[in-house]
Amino acid sequence: MTADIFFQIVTPNEALARLIEHLPRSARTERVGLEAALGRVTAAPLMSPEDSPAFARSAMDGYAVRAADTYGASEGLPAFLTMDGEVPMGAAAERPLQPGTAQLIHTGGMLPPEADAVVMVEYTQPVDETSVEILRPAAPGQHVIQTGEDLAAGDALLPAGHQLRAQDLGTLAALGITEVDAAIPPVVGVLSSGDEVVPADATPAPGQVRDVNATTLSALASQAGAEVREFGVAPDNRAELDRLTRAALDACDLVIISAGSSVSTRDMTADVIGSLGQPGVLAHGIAVKPGKPTIVALADGKPVFGLPGNPVSAMVVFGLVVVPTIRRLLGAVHPDEPPRRRARLTRSLASQTGRIDFVPAALQQRDDEWWATPVLGPSNLIATLVRASGLIRIPLDAGGLPEGAWVDVEPF
Amino acid sequence: MTADIFFQIVTPNEALARLIEHLPRSARTERVGLEAALGRVTAAPLMSPEDSPAFARSAMDGYAVRAADTYGASEGLPAFLTMDGEVPMGAAAERPLQPGTAQLIHTGGMLPPEADAVVMVEYTQPVDETSVEILRPAAPGQHVIQTGEDLAAGDALLPAGHQLRAQDLGTLAALGITEVDAAIPPVVGVLSSGDEVVPADATPAPGQVRDVNATTLSALASQAGAEVREFGVAPDNRAELDRLTRAALDACDLVIISAGSSVSTRDMTADVIGSLGQPGVLAHGIAVKPGKPTIVALADGKPVFGLPGNPVSAMVVFGLVVVPTIRRLLGAVHPDEPPRRRARLTRSLASQTGRIDFVPAALQQRDDEWWATPVLGPSNLIATLVRASGLIRIPLDAGGLPEGAWVDVEPF
Repeated sequence: MTADIFFQIVTPNEALARLIEHLPRSARTERVGLEAALGRVTAAPLMSPEDSPAFARSAMDGYAVRAADTYGASEGLPAFLTMDGEVPMGAAAERPLQPGTAQLIHTGGMLPPEADAVVMVEYTQPVDETSVEILRPAAPGQHVIQTGEDLAAGDALLPAGHQLRAQDLGTLAALGITEVDAAIPPVVGVLSSGDEVVPADATPAPGQVRDVNATTLSALASQAGAEVREFGVAPDNRAELDRLTRAALDACDLVIISAGSSVSTRDMTADVIGSLGQPGVLAHGIAVKPGKPTIVALADGKPVFGLPGNPVSAMVVFGLVVVPTIRRLLGAVHPDEPPRRRARLTRSLASQTGRIDFVPAALQQRDDEWWATPVLGPSNLIATLVRASGLIRIPLDAGGLPEGAWVDVEPF
Repeated sequence: MTADIFFQIVTPNEALARLIEHLPRSARTERVGLEAALGRVTAAPLMSPEDSPAFARSAMDGYAVRAADTYGASEGLPAFLTMDGEVPMGAAAERPLQPGTAQLIHTGGMLPPEADAVVMVEYTQPVDETSVEILRPAAPGQHVIQTGEDLAAGDALLPAGHQLRAQDLGTLAALGITEVDAAIPPVVGVLSSGDEVVPADATPAPGQVRDVNATTLSALASQAGAEVREFGVAPDNRAELDRLTRAALDACDLVIISAGSSVSTRDMTADVIGSLGQPGVLAHGIAVKPGKPTIVALADGKPVFGLPGNPVSAMVVFGLVVVPTIRRLLGAVHPDEPPRRRARLTRSLASQTGRIDFVPAALQQRDDEWWATPVLGPSNLIATLVRASGLIRIPLDAGGLPEGAWVDVEPF
């Protein structure tokens, strides 16, 4: 199976589909306190354990009444009610509401037994210390939030595979849920290859360059919810690359190899990736620019990616295939499609149908519109990384785009 | 000064402007290793300490040549060059390039002295082990990335106040910068008030509710780059609220009080906030729905916010005024305007000119378009928090919007 697809270029989605069909549908899980749960992915659906509110409460400042006592009330002919004290905040009323009486109540206060409506303070007129006039009739239930009206016990709160947001945590807190079962972050092993590549803290000899991708890809993997382990740089030596890759594969759930820039390193990397386990290479080459020389493989259940050495290419491919894979290992249900900014092109852009093009761009706001200026440095080198703030995405079947055209820009 | 603006409703931007003019322009800083610097804000501009690339290198696999040796070469009349070995990856060439010779070179390889161009392997034809035919002429500099072409020593990399992204870290690594000066995260104190509010891990008595906002606002503050300290719930007792607020103010750089729902708690909270220090309350009430009962204050140099107790209101106001304040305390240069999603309304929406309206919405993709369905539960209770995935923003001067209208939706 591997051989006939070896040099066949596929779309990123097709490469991803080939990989994902082999991956487990659920993640390993652990219990996490709310204070550490932001951004974590739920392992099971969460339901409301109780009614919320747990008691009928007032939505306004005013008077708790029996609605029937206010029928026909108007400014000309107010209903006259006896004041029967005040409902304290954070406690039950001292007594049920008697016919013909009203109790002062605050927003969030618990409705006294037998009361069924609240009259806003604006529609009342105190007569003296012991009585109040009601100037408008109240319908039963008016300005009352009923028990369970917000959420009933058993109501679905959050599905499994949901990435927890600030407000989700607040909601869980409100319902007394202080811990959740969350997916354990997959461990991503990051290594680089190439005789010309040295770690960031080394002093490069003539002909050597420091590793960009280990740092960039580690940060992106951690942003995507993974735990990262770095495995350094393998030289252009088949045995050494093999040894380091297998060490990463043993210790991690997913391995990323950022290949050196020469053809021989890339070929050796492909060769090593293909030999790690079954079924091996699933796609070699994807229809994306930049990012074509990408390898997607599976070695005995673990995803392995060979990413291009060029840093912009590596980032583009990481977003297209590695992020969705990490999210799948987390059991996250939504493919993480980032919100895009609509912007207009400051110059025309050429493109080729049959592949997705990503063009790094600097974004600028002019009046109410965003404008994208392609950053066209020498072949996507590192200056592009810092000067671009977005990637213009040109779809598979679009040709070129004229100046002023609206484009989708992904944050970068 | 405080008295005459006390009940004057202002726009969120005006409230923010009144606050920000009093804040320091720069943050306290610390040195951070790259592995911990993702999302941190730079304290000073960063410049490239060296040329990148540090040597002229090949952008292609092919042969390093002297361009002059290839002039006039064609398929019919190739230039004939003597093979003089191979440039090793990660090292200098063994010798300078002699006239009439070519050295095999790989992408990323260091150009030998005296070579000034690279001919792609596709446009060459090996003759035997010692010679090669060049089928196209090479211009000087062809397929060569010159020393400093990507970045020259002293080139601006990143400004002060820049929030570090994955690719920024990779770029710094490439240039041998393994630590940066970053703003120390401001400490945000979070407390709640109201006799009816109990912490999430307490069992509410009748009439009591668990605190939603402490959890939600702490998570949002930490997302915005702050360090969070929680100070619990103050009862409706002026002395106790005062004590807890001053404790938070002493220990933190910024304090958020989420007020209980009753008017008396809100008034007491406003009163305490106004008494903390100079100049005191800067805005009481902002032209936003939901979120109007907001207090923005400054107490002897420290921002203090009184946020509405309703959880959706508190989140809206947090995004509008607290996030920009945290970013200012970090010295971040860009107001953090989140990317928005363009979506169409599934139903019409009423609005009022003169204020900004935010409507929680569920987003759904249909074909290629996103559609926003307003989540209109009972007065923005907690179910709204989990059901909404965005906030529709209706600008200050827009009236209502018809079904099908395009709107901007902020992630929520």
